[in-house]
Amino acid sequence: MVIVMKHNATAEEIGGMVQHIEAMGFRAHLSQGEERAIIGVIGNERPIDPEHFELFPGVERAIRILHPFKLASRDFHPEDSVVRINGVSVGGNQVIVMAGPCSVESREQLLETAAAVKAAGAHVLRGGAFKPRTSPYAFQGLGLKGLELLREARDQFHLPIVTEVVSPQDVTLVAQYADILQIGARNMQNFALLAAVGEMQKPVLLKRGLMSTIEELLMAAEYILSHGNQRVILCERGIRTFETATRNTFDINAIPVLKSLTHLPVMADPSHGTGKWELVTPVARAAVAAGADGIIVEVHPNPALALSDGPQSLKPANFAQLVADVRRVAEAIGRAV
Amino acid sequence: MVIVMKHNATAEEIGGMVQHIEAMGFRAHLSQGEERAIIGVIGNERPIDPEHFELFPGVERAIRILHPFKLASRDFHPEDSVVRINGVSVGGNQVIVMAGPCSVESREQLLETAAAVKAAGAHVLRGGAFKPRTSPYAFQGLGLKGLELLREARDQFHLPIVTEVVSPQDVTLVAQYADILQIGARNMQNFALLAAVGEMQKPVLLKRGLMSTIEELLMAAEYILSHGNQRVILCERGIRTFETATRNTFDINAIPVLKSLTHLPVMADPSHGTGKWELVTPVARAAVAAGADGIIVEVHPNPALALSDGPQSLKPANFAQLVADVRRVAEAIGRAV
Amino acid sequence: MVIVMKHNATAEEIGGMVQHIEAMGFRAHLSQGEERAIIGVIGNERPIDPEHFELFPGVERAIRILHPFKLASRDFHPEDSVVRINGVSVGGNQVIVMAGPCSVESREQLLETAAAVKAAGAHVLRGGAFKPRTSPYAFQGLGLKGLELLREARDQFHLPIVTEVVSPQDVTLVAQYADILQIGARNMQNFALLAAVGEMQKPVLLKRGLMSTIEELLMAAEYILSHGNQRVILCERGIRTFETATRNTFDINAIPVLKSLTHLPVMADPSHGTGKWELVTPVARAAVAAGADGIIVEVHPNPALALSDGPQSLKPANFAQLVADVRRVAEAIGRAV
Amino acid sequence: MVIVMKHNATAEEIGGMVQHIEAMGFRAHLSQGEERAIIGVIGNERPIDPEHFELFPGVERAIRILHPFKLASRDFHPEDSVVRINGVSVGGNQVIVMAGPCSVESREQLLETAAAVKAAGAHVLRGGAFKPRTSPYAFQGLGLKGLELLREARDQFHLPIVTEVVSPQDVTLVAQYADILQIGARNMQNFALLAAVGEMQKPVLLKRGLMSTIEELLMAAEYILSHGNQRVILCERGIRTFETATRNTFDINAIPVLKSLTHLPVMADPSHGTGKWELVTPVARAAVAAGADGIIVEVHPNPALALSDGPQSLKPANFAQLVADVRRVAEAIGRAV
Repeated sequence: MVIVMKHNATAEEIGGMVQHIEAMGFRAHLSQGEERAIIGVIGNERPIDPEHFELFPGVERAIRILHPFKLASRDFHPEDSVVRINGVSVGGNQVIVMAGPCSVESREQLLETAAAVKAAGAHVLRGGAFKPRTSPYAFQGLGLKGLELLREARDQFHLPIVTEVVSPQDVTLVAQYADILQIGARNMQNFALLAAVGEMQKPVLLKRGLMSTIEELLMAAEYILSHGNQRVILCERGIRTFETATRNTFDINAIPVLKSLTHLPVMADPSHGTGKWELVTPVARAAVAAGADGIIVEVHPNPALALSDGPQSLKPANFAQLVADVRRVAEAIGRAV
Repeated sequence: MVIVMKHNATAEEIGGMVQHIEAMGFRAHLSQGEERAIIGVIGNERPIDPEHFELFPGVERAIRILHPFKLASRDFHPEDSVVRINGVSVGGNQVIVMAGPCSVESREQLLETAAAVKAAGAHVLRGGAFKPRTSPYAFQGLGLKGLELLREARDQFHLPIVTEVVSPQDVTLVAQYADILQIGARNMQNFALLAAVGEMQKPVLLKRGLMSTIEELLMAAEYILSHGNQRVILCERGIRTFETATRNTFDINAIPVLKSLTHLPVMADPSHGTGKWELVTPVARAAVAAGADGIIVEVHPNPALALSDGPQSLKPANFAQLVADVRRVAEAIGRAV
Repeated sequence: MVIVMKHNATAEEIGGMVQHIEAMGFRAHLSQGEERAIIGVIGNERPIDPEHFELFPGVERAIRILHPFKLASRDFHPEDSVVRINGVSVGGNQVIVMAGPCSVESREQLLETAAAVKAAGAHVLRGGAFKPRTSPYAFQGLGLKGLELLREARDQFHLPIVTEVVSPQDVTLVAQYADILQIGARNMQNFALLAAVGEMQKPVLLKRGLMSTIEELLMAAEYILSHGNQRVILCERGIRTFETATRNTFDINAIPVLKSLTHLPVMADPSHGTGKWELVTPVARAAVAAGADGIIVEVHPNPALALSDGPQSLKPANFAQLVADVRRVAEAIGRAV
Repeated sequence: MVIVMKHNATAEEIGGMVQHIEAMGFRAHLSQGEERAIIGVIGNERPIDPEHFELFPGVERAIRILHPFKLASRDFHPEDSVVRINGVSVGGNQVIVMAGPCSVESREQLLETAAAVKAAGAHVLRGGAFKPRTSPYAFQGLGLKGLELLREARDQFHLPIVTEVVSPQDVTLVAQYADILQIGARNMQNFALLAAVGEMQKPVLLKRGLMSTIEELLMAAEYILSHGNQRVILCERGIRTFETATRNTFDINAIPVLKSLTHLPVMADPSHGTGKWELVTPVARAAVAAGADGIIVEVHPNPALALSDGPQSLKPANFAQLVADVRRVAEAIGRAV
């Protein structure tokens, strides 16, 4: 932490700040500039909120020096983490493709989609049984019935399953069916839920909140890691900005930024990141070109009949083309699909 | 809903769209412009996602005409709703003041704060027992012990209590202690939690998410209302923008916008809305001048020792000044405190 | 400036950085923390971009300590500046009201508006002759003819004039007619234009860009001040955010923040800040309650016929009510209108 | 345009709106829904601001149906435009690489950079002579001297030149030296400048404003096109969002969105789009994978000595690697560099 004193801070205020820092168990390091004094706070600053210091007389602001996350940081874990799920490795050289419908709607819809994405080369099947929806009047998912259908598709097509969990009390149930527990964007700071999945021994796919910074995403991962679950996969899925031409703004920069800050695998969701099926393939190609360890894509046999997210779902034939495109881009940068 | 066809849409595409609309049980109303055809969809469009129509060939975009919320709308409930809590009325002529510490930290801290805010004229005591925190390493609240202390302060000072609930499984417990259940900004779209408080017969203070639109806030209220709980109080608490000089940007426009769209009471939280105690009083005055039905303010006997939100907490003397200021502004616009 | 070295920076990298700092003419102050070294750069850092240092091996980031503005800062000019224009003082105890049409459209329209705003108590007449418009197909203003009409209204009603200048080559011309030169939001970082008005001896009303930070606004003021013109009035007019219910989000926090950072007067534009006439009066009241030194409001005798900004223009009767409201709020906080 | 009437609009208000529409020369098409009436406005709505209609009694809102741009739209110009500059074609199958220093600093610096980017395969040399800078205390460019150096580098290396023009009065001068006139992000809505370059017969590279929507970018292009200059190249260069980990958020979605809306070529600037040199190559690869017609990249022989934008400038060796990477990605999607 560095504390910047005000231009007109008195010697007494500066001395008081130094005393307070030392009383907290830190060492203080005073540096007198031409216009302002600054005080370095030496020690593990992570549990301290920088704004704490701004309450003291004569203080202008306090600036965090260390990243607030530690378990997620490359500082202490420089090599890439690889998350292994039933033979699929996320975070290695291979670019992983997860695909399937937004919501599980029926046995027929799910099995048809699973067959198609398997044939096209997907490694993991996605599908929602518990759906967080903005409107109370919209389809909320099949719940347990959806989980059972996912289990059936998993067994028939030998595809691991990723599905969302939305409430702490459902975590044990969902973990009985899912190979990967998904935390959706709107729950990225549902700390009770993060703690609950942190207690499980199942991989977690943690999606960035649409209003969350990269640092907050890493702090959410830190919640899960600090509860003992080390198998966390991050996912960029678009953020909210002033631009309204697309549902979200896919933050392509976040991919190389995350790869530099953390050892955790980083995936990309071009379906939510754009909100329009025509944009999914170019943005999927871009995400892989930028270094994503995988993509997760919504596919539906008949998007016009989908009960959710139809507009951003690909038809099976378009998805097969996407996989072919992404494979060529992956190879161009020395990776495989 | 209005569906805008592409410039080059064929007669067949237009006809197909009309057929589909009618097959969904709506009436279709075709209007042929000079450059584009548009089709009106007549009926209750609320459960339908406009983007559904964008999947059909020849469609450029679809535009919602009705607000997606109904129970929260003034259209069907033109007069103001007043939420009554143990003698306090929120949404009437009186501007209500809720105040107290961010977190309940100890018996002494809470009772000292409660005495001070009562003396200064506050109507409701706030205090957090379950705290959603960005860092897993930060103070997470006293939990049940905090609720018990709130009960003690309530009985001693005859102040109703507002406190946050963060998880569906805690709702029944918190409702035994609280007079008002608070849904925090990060849980505004925790739909499982909204449904749970919708089942209770307790007033709910629903804070706007830091990156949620006004419409999404009203849809979150609609969740609670549609589950049967009619006593919802909205609260503007600042949104996330590109500006970093303040923790959040208090959206003053939202106050008159909400008052025009909904019959529900609208409060303001200038503490979170600014993040700096020096800004709390001017922004509290502004919120009341703009028409807020109340304010909720963080107060701490010694902010420098607060375990959370110290930088935005007022000392008791400053809070008393805030109440005096706000009272004069309220009177200037024909209201009382 | 404070330079934060990487976790794994070598002694050689740290030494190299210190040498470079000293070679630039600064003093370097090394502080070795537990996880990272930090180096203080002592001297006038203002001309240096912090990112400059991030290019050196072993550097994680560099953080500016001083505000990049100096002439605009309260550090060296603690007392409020008052800008005097023909008997009107902006920045003193009185809250100043500027009002008039968005665009000068005709002699009749301008004189009718001027009479009305004068009668209601406005101190300055606004009106645009050169209009920056998003569409090349929209009305672009009357130009010189508009300036002449403003001159006529000025003389007839004894109201100083504020009008916008959009191009460096027009500055001399506009200054012959205007009492205050307005720099619009879209030109806040038109540095050639800022330099040009900085050469004039006329007050400048500098509007915040719709996506400019408070610091950037103060840097734009610094351009004008550093070219020799000390009479700068700042104006908050709403920023662009994700919220689409209003045209802009009026940043009420910016008013007390600016008043604390700078000695320059701070006005508010609730017309652009909201974009809807129904919201102008509540937000005007709020701006004054928050400490604004004045407001600037769009008024039109018949908004439905306005060639620009009709939707946010008040009719004369509504404007008179606004002035009455604002006066009561000003008095409630110890000021006058 | 579609006009949505309020829930409680009277027959008189609806009739009045229809009359007004017809009086404006449009046809009106009334459609009575279950909860609201809507009125279609048939005719060329482009010069009309939708908000105009919101001033009439009983109107809730008005929605534009047509894109406000016409010359830039694919509707009337479905095939791609190719801009030809001295043998370089932008907008065809080849992906064009423009590169060079942010600012021209000296003859030696420019020629060394020009030699390096030519050797690496760049097609156009960039370099700033007139520099818009946030701080009045920062290097403002060499002006005319810079233009002369660019001319020398152009002749020596047979590279067309792109350089920025910041003020209408400089356009003729800059056009004597430049092959492509650049409009920078901060001037995207400097309408006087857009009009001035619209009068020239030189290609224009128009950068998206950091706060501008895709629609506003196309309206800025429309200014240039409507003044007679058809050779406009668009450039995505990152937008401002709440994320602070990078200088800007590169809007990758904008590339395929622009390619679908307009026939104009679309380039990408990963240097400004990220602000950090380590991120430039992955984001350049992503932009090409998403369909960009070219990239523009900052290169400096010694970024640590650069007078501007050093942190985002690549060294020549890194730039050569970028070109090699981008070539492989371009080939993977069936294009060349």
